[in-house]
Amino acid sequence: MPETLMNRMSWVAYRDRVQDGGSPVFLPVGATEQHGPHLPLGTDALLASAVSESAARLVDGIVAPAFAYGFKSQPKCGGGNHFCGTTSLDAQTLAAQVRDAVREFARHGVTRLVIVNGHYENQWFLIEGIDLAMRELGPTSPLTVMRLEYWDFFTPETLAKVFPDGFPGYALEHAAVMETSMMLHFHPDLVRLDLIPDDPPADFPPYDIYPTRTDWVPPSGVLSSAKGASRDKGQAMADEVAKLIATAVRTEFGLGPAL
Amino acid sequence: MPETLMNRMSWVAYRDRVQDGGSPVFLPVGATEQHGPHLPLGTDALLASAVSESAARLVDGIVAPAFAYGFKSQPKCGGGNHFCGTTSLDAQTLAAQVRDAVREFARHGVTRLVIVNGHYENQWFLIEGIDLAMRELGPTSPLTVMRLEYWDFFTPETLAKVFPDGFPGYALEHAAVMETSMMLHFHPDLVRLDLIPDDPPADFPPYDIYPTRTDWVPPSGVLSSAKGASRDKGQAMADEVAKLIATAVRTEFGLGPAL
Amino acid sequence: MPETLMNRMSWVAYRDRVQDGGSPVFLPVGATEQHGPHLPLGTDALLASAVSESAARLVDGIVAPAFAYGFKSQPKCGGGNHFCGTTSLDAQTLAAQVRDAVREFARHGVTRLVIVNGHYENQWFLIEGIDLAMRELGPTSPLTVMRLEYWDFFTPETLAKVFPDGFPGYALEHAAVMETSMMLHFHPDLVRLDLIPDDPPADFPPYDIYPTRTDWVPPSGVLSSAKGASRDKGQAMADEVAKLIATAVRTEFGLGPAL
Amino acid sequence: MPETLMNRMSWVAYRDRVQDGGSPVFLPVGATEQHGPHLPLGTDALLASAVSESAARLVDGIVAPAFAYGFKSQPKCGGGNHFCGTTSLDAQTLAAQVRDAVREFARHGVTRLVIVNGHYENQWFLIEGIDLAMRELGPTSPLTVMRLEYWDFFTPETLAKVFPDGFPGYALEHAAVMETSMMLHFHPDLVRLDLIPDDPPADFPPYDIYPTRTDWVPPSGVLSSAKGASRDKGQAMADEVAKLIATAVRTEFGLGPAL
Amino acid sequence: MPETLMNRMSWVAYRDRVQDGGSPVFLPVGATEQHGPHLPLGTDALLASAVSESAARLVDGIVAPAFAYGFKSQPKCGGGNHFCGTTSLDAQTLAAQVRDAVREFARHGVTRLVIVNGHYENQWFLIEGIDLAMRELGPTSPLTVMRLEYWDFFTPETLAKVFPDGFPGYALEHAAVMETSMMLHFHPDLVRLDLIPDDPPADFPPYDIYPTRTDWVPPSGVLSSAKGASRDKGQAMADEVAKLIATAVRTEFGLGPAL
Amino acid sequence: MPETLMNRMSWVAYRDRVQDGGSPVFLPVGATEQHGPHLPLGTDALLASAVSESAARLVDGIVAPAFAYGFKSQPKCGGGNHFCGTTSLDAQTLAAQVRDAVREFARHGVTRLVIVNGHYENQWFLIEGIDLAMRELGPTSPLTVMRLEYWDFFTPETLAKVFPDGFPGYALEHAAVMETSMMLHFHPDLVRLDLIPDDPPADFPPYDIYPTRTDWVPPSGVLSSAKGASRDKGQAMADEVAKLIATAVRTEFGLGPAL
Repeated sequence: MPETLMNRMSWVAYRDRVQDGGSPVFLPVGATEQHGPHLPLGTDALLASAVSESAARLVDGIVAPAFAYGFKSQPKCGGGNHFCGTTSLDAQTLAAQVRDAVREFARHGVTRLVIVNGHYENQWFLIEGIDLAMRELGPTSPLTVMRLEYWDFFTPETLAKVFPDGFPGYALEHAAVMETSMMLHFHPDLVRLDLIPDDPPADFPPYDIYPTRTDWVPPSGVLSSAKGASRDKGQAMADEVAKLIATAVRTEFGLGPAL
Repeated sequence: MPETLMNRMSWVAYRDRVQDGGSPVFLPVGATEQHGPHLPLGTDALLASAVSESAARLVDGIVAPAFAYGFKSQPKCGGGNHFCGTTSLDAQTLAAQVRDAVREFARHGVTRLVIVNGHYENQWFLIEGIDLAMRELGPTSPLTVMRLEYWDFFTPETLAKVFPDGFPGYALEHAAVMETSMMLHFHPDLVRLDLIPDDPPADFPPYDIYPTRTDWVPPSGVLSSAKGASRDKGQAMADEVAKLIATAVRTEFGLGPAL
Repeated sequence: MPETLMNRMSWVAYRDRVQDGGSPVFLPVGATEQHGPHLPLGTDALLASAVSESAARLVDGIVAPAFAYGFKSQPKCGGGNHFCGTTSLDAQTLAAQVRDAVREFARHGVTRLVIVNGHYENQWFLIEGIDLAMRELGPTSPLTVMRLEYWDFFTPETLAKVFPDGFPGYALEHAAVMETSMMLHFHPDLVRLDLIPDDPPADFPPYDIYPTRTDWVPPSGVLSSAKGASRDKGQAMADEVAKLIATAVRTEFGLGPAL
Repeated sequence: MPETLMNRMSWVAYRDRVQDGGSPVFLPVGATEQHGPHLPLGTDALLASAVSESAARLVDGIVAPAFAYGFKSQPKCGGGNHFCGTTSLDAQTLAAQVRDAVREFARHGVTRLVIVNGHYENQWFLIEGIDLAMRELGPTSPLTVMRLEYWDFFTPETLAKVFPDGFPGYALEHAAVMETSMMLHFHPDLVRLDLIPDDPPADFPPYDIYPTRTDWVPPSGVLSSAKGASRDKGQAMADEVAKLIATAVRTEFGLGPAL
Repeated sequence: MPETLMNRMSWVAYRDRVQDGGSPVFLPVGATEQHGPHLPLGTDALLASAVSESAARLVDGIVAPAFAYGFKSQPKCGGGNHFCGTTSLDAQTLAAQVRDAVREFARHGVTRLVIVNGHYENQWFLIEGIDLAMRELGPTSPLTVMRLEYWDFFTPETLAKVFPDGFPGYALEHAAVMETSMMLHFHPDLVRLDLIPDDPPADFPPYDIYPTRTDWVPPSGVLSSAKGASRDKGQAMADEVAKLIATAVRTEFGLGPAL
Repeated sequence: MPETLMNRMSWVAYRDRVQDGGSPVFLPVGATEQHGPHLPLGTDALLASAVSESAARLVDGIVAPAFAYGFKSQPKCGGGNHFCGTTSLDAQTLAAQVRDAVREFARHGVTRLVIVNGHYENQWFLIEGIDLAMRELGPTSPLTVMRLEYWDFFTPETLAKVFPDGFPGYALEHAAVMETSMMLHFHPDLVRLDLIPDDPPADFPPYDIYPTRTDWVPPSGVLSSAKGASRDKGQAMADEVAKLIATAVRTEFGLGPAL
C-alpha cells in the first residue's frame, strides 16, 4: 500500500502522486482542547487525521500534516476557552493558516484538496481561509476545494444506532458518545472509560454571555454523557464516514468509482 | 514513565502537571519542506518533535503538538520555496501562531515554556511571535520562554566527529549529514539511503535574487551531501542535544539537578 | 415613551440613559444579502433592528445603529456570495467592527450590551470581535455582553405553529417562512407575496465545494418555500422573541422584573 | 417613482437597475458622534444618507445602506473622541469596510459608484479603502468611483447667504449652522433648537496634543454656534448639493443631461 | 552647541538628554514624492527635518531620523500617485511605523514627543498611529505627544507677505511658493529656479475620481506657480515656524521660557 | 558626476535615469540602535547608506532614502531591545514598508532593485517584504530584486587582515571592529575612539530567554571589543564591498562591465 502521510513522503514521491496521479490531498484541522477527563487534549486533531487517513486510503489520497490548534473553544460546543489545556488561535491566525496552505497546495499542482474539520468551532474560519485563497488564486485556477465537518456524513440510520435514546445534536456531542466511540476505535489506549463523568447534559440558554459564564459548563468539560460509547459504535461510524467521504471525493473530483 | 505528549493527555492530567508540578512545556516548530529524495517532507517537524520529547523526558516535561508548517524555504538554507511539496506560511501567520500559543500557555499557568525550532527559516518569526505575546502579557507575567534551534547545542567535539572533513555550516546542512543522521536515529524507516544524491555542495553568492534563481539550487534540493550520515552519528547527536537542552532548562528555570 | 434609537438621541440624553440609568444597549448586526425576489436585500439588518427595538422598549434599552453589512453569504444558509446585490465583508473586517464598537461602548460606561444577530453567517465573527474586545478591556472591565441569534429564542410551541409540516432547520430558513412572516409583520410594504418562488427546498450534500457550486442553489436564491408565511405568524414570532430577549436581559443583567 | 434604497429592493430589482440600467450606486458614510445637545448622535449618517437619496433621485440612482460608524472624532473638527456616545472605528476597520464594499459592488456589475462622506474625519480612510479595492480590482475593471464630502459642493453664493457674518470653515462647522440647518430640513423632529448652546467658537492652536486636551473643547461639544441655523437655509443647501452632485455624476459617468 | 540629531548621538548621550534632561524628541515625517521639475523628490522629508532641527535647537531638543516615505500622493494636494518617483506607503504601514516609534520613545523615558509632518497626505495616518500607541501605553503613561503640520504655524502676516496676491490654500501649495522658498532657504543647491514651470494653477472639482483622472493635474506635477518664491521669503517662514513651534513646545510641555 | 541620491533629484531626472537608462535603484535599510558609547545610534542606516552610495556610483545607480528604523535588536547580535535609544519596528511594519516600496519602484519602471541591509536583525523581514511584493506583482513583472547584507561581501583575505586574531563572527560584530572601522572611514566625526569600552567579548548560551536576560549583555552594549578598529581597515572594507556589490549588480542585472 502506498504511503498516505505527506510528512513521511519525499517531495519527489509527493510530486509524482499529485502532479502525475492527480491524488487528492486531505488537510485535517483539529484543535488542542479539553475533552473531559477521559479523552485526550488532542482528540479533534487525532480524529480529523484518522478520518482523513481512512478516506485517503480509499481514493489513493495523501494526508497533509494536521493543523493541531483551532479556534477558541465555546461553552456550548467545546466547554469554553477558560479550561486549562485548551490552546486556541485567534480567528485571523487560523484563517491565515488555511489561506497559506491552500495557496501552497495550488502551487504544487494539487487540483483536489479536501479540508477535513474535526473541531466544531473551526468551521467558519476555514471558510474564510479558503475564500481568501480562492480569491487570490483567481477564477482560472484549476484547484477545487472540498470542506467538510466529518460528523455531517453520519447517516440517520447510524445516528439512530449510536444514540438509541435520541441524538442530542452535534454541539453537545463534545467529548461524548460520538467522539469517545471514535477514539475507542482509532486510539483505544487514549480513552479512560473509568473516568467518564456522570454529569447530566449541559443545558444552555439561547444566547451567550461574555465574559464566559463558566458555571454554565460542567467542571469536567463534558457536555453530555459519554456513557453510551463503545468501540463497535466507533468502528461503524469510522467506516461509514470514510466510505462516504471517499464517495463524495470521487464524485465531486471526477475520479473513477472505487476499485 | 508519565505521558510526555500533551495531545495524549487529558486536560486534568495536563493541568496537574503544569500547575502543581511546574512541568516545562516544549513547543516544537517545524516545517513541511522538501528534504531531497531521501528524507521525508516532514523532517523538520519530526526532528523538532523528537528532540523535544527526548529533552522533555529528562525534565518531566510535556511536549505540545508541533506547528508542522514553517516559514518559506530559502534557497541557501532549504532549497527555496519553488519545490513541490514545500508548504510554507507567511511571516505574519507563523508569528501569530506563536503569539497565540504563548498567550494560551500563559493562561494555563505554564511558567516554563521551551520553543524548539527545527527549521532554520523559522527563527526570526518565532522571535517576533514570542515578543508580541510577552508584550501583551506584560511585565508582571510569571512566564519565561526559552527559544532554541536544536543544532546550536552540538558541541565542537561532536561536530568534529560528525564532520571529519570539516563542518560546512548549518545553512548548507539541509537534508545533509546532520538531518539524515538524526532521522536514521529517530525514524530509520523514513530514510532512503539509496536515494541520497551525489550532488556537490551548493555554492551561493553573497546575496539573494528575487524571483528565486532556481538554477542556483541542485534539482534534488540537497545543499550538501548526506553521504557521511549514519545512525551512530544520529544517536550521538540526539543524545547530546537532549542532555544539553535538559541541562539548560534546569539551569534557566530553576529546576533541581537531574535525577 | 422615551427614544429608543441611539442615532436619534443627543449625546447628552444617551449619556444620561447609559451612565445614570444603566440602560442596556442593543447592537443589531445584519447583512445586505439576496433574499429571493420577494424580500428586500436589507432583510437581515431590518429584522435585527426591529427585534432589537421591540426588546429594547421592554427594558428601557437603546438601539445603536445596525451594522448593515455582514459576512459572506454561504450557499447552504444564504444562497451563496455569487448573487448580485449580496454585499459582504471579509471576516477580519466584521470582527474588527464589532471589536471597535464594544471597546467604545465600554468607554461610554455601558455595562450591558446586547449584540443581536440577524444573519446566520455572522455568528462566529461576532464571537471573535467580542472576544478581542474583552481581552483588550481586561478582566476588571464592568462590561457584560450578551450575544444572540434572535431565531434561537423561538419556542418549540411557536415553531410547531409556524411550521405545521415540520421545521426545516434555520439554515434553510433563508428568505423562507420565518423571515417572510417577520417581514410581513414589521415591513409589510417590502414583501412581495406575489413573487414568492415555487422552488422545492434546496438539498445539499454534507460538504461544501469551492469555488461555489452555484447550481446547487435555486436561481431565485430561496432555499425553502416561503409559501406558508403570514403576518399573523410574524407577529407571534416577533412578540415572543422580544419578550424572551427582554426576559433574558433582565435576568442576566440584574435588572428588575418587567413593569 | 422607483425605489431608491437598496435595502428595500429585492436583489432581482437591484440587478436589473445596475446591470441593465447602469444605475449609479451611492454609498453614504457617516459616524455615530456627539453633535451637541441639540442634534442627534446619528447626524452624520443621517445627512450623508439624505444627501445621497436626494441626489440619487435625480439620476435614477440607488442608495446602499450607510456605514453608520466612522473614524475617531478629533477635537478640532468633531469635539474629540472622549465624548460619551461618540462611537468610532479604528482606521483599518473603516478602510477595510470601504475596500470590501467597493469589491462587492464591482462584482455586482456596478460601474458607477459614488461614496458620499458626511463625517470630516472619514475622508482619508475612504481614500485608502477605495485605493486598496482599485488595486485589487486591477486596471481592467470597468468600475469608476467618485468620492465626495458633500459640503464641498456648496457654492460661495450659498455660503455667503448661510453665513452672513463670514464662513468659519468646515472644520468648526461641527453641530453648527450648516449641519443644524440641514437637519432642520431633513429631520426637523430630531433638532432641539432650544438646546443650542451659547458657547463662543472654539479656538484651537495650530497643533494637536495627545492625550486629548479635553479642556480645549466646549463641554457641549459644539465648536461654533448653531444659532444662525434655519430650515430655509437647510433647504437651500440641500437642494444645491443634490443638484450639483447629480450634475457631477452625470458629467463624470457619461450619463445624459437631467430630464 | 550640543548635538541635535539622534542618529549622530551615542545611546548614552541620548539617554542622558531624554531621561535626565527631559529633552523633547522631534520626529519628522515626510514623503518621497514628485515636487515638479524644480524641487527634489525628498522635499517633504527634507523640510520636515529642517524645521524640526531649527525648532529643536531652540528647546534643547533631539531630532529622530525622519520617516522618509509617506502616504499616497493625492491629485489635489500632491499631484497624485501616478507620477514616477513618488514612492508611497499604504495607510496601515504608515500608521504602524508611527505607533511603533511612539511606543519605543515611551520606553526610552521620553515624555515630550513632537511629530512634525511635512506631507499633507500623512496627517490622518499620523493621528491613527499616535492613537494606537497611546491606547496601548494606557492612561498612566507620562508621555505627551504633540503633532503638527508645520505650515499651520505661519501667521496671517507672513502669509500676506509671501502671497501678496492672496494665499491659494495649502492644498495647492505643492511644489509652489511656500515649499520652493523654504527649500531656497534650507537647501538652495537642490532648487532649479530655471525649471519652474509656467502652468496656471490647477482647478479641481469638489470631488475625486478613481482611478485618478491624471488629466486634471498639470504634467509637471506643480499645482500652482512657484514663480513668486524667494530665499528671503523662505528664511522668514523658516524663522517664524521654528520660533512658534519652540514656543508651543515650551508652553505645552511645561518647559521654561526661551533663554 | 550625476546625482546619486534620489531625494535630491527631481522626479523628471529620476524618471529619465530609471526608465531610459535602466539605472539600478539601491534601497538602504538600517536601524536606530545602540552601538555602544563610541558609535552613534544611526550607525546601521549610515553604513547601509554609505555602502549603497559607494556601490551606486560604480554602476550609475540611484540611492533611495534609507529606512532608518529596523527590527527589534536582539541580545546576541545587537545587545537587545531594552537599551534606551534603540528604536525598533514590529516585524509586520518592517515587512510592509519593504513590500510597499518594492511595489512602488516596480510602478516607476525600475527593473533593477538592490536592497542593502545594514542591520543583522532585519534580514528575514526584508525577505518577507520582498516576497509579498513579488507575489503581488506576479510572474510577469520585469522587476528583479537583489537583497544583500553588505558584510557578506568581505573576502576571507580582508577578514584575515581586519581580524588578525581571528574573526569572531558577524553576530558579535556589533559596534565592534568592523562597524567602528567602517564608521571611521565614512563618518570619522561620529566615532569616539576614547570611549571604546574594554569589555571582554560577550559569551552567550545556545538559546535565548524571554524576557531578555539583560545581564547577559555588557552594559555598554558592545558585544566584542572595537579596540582593533582603524580608518585604514574601514577604507579597505568599504572599497572592497562597494566594488564587489557593483560587480554583482553588473553580473546579475546584465549591465556591461565597469567603465
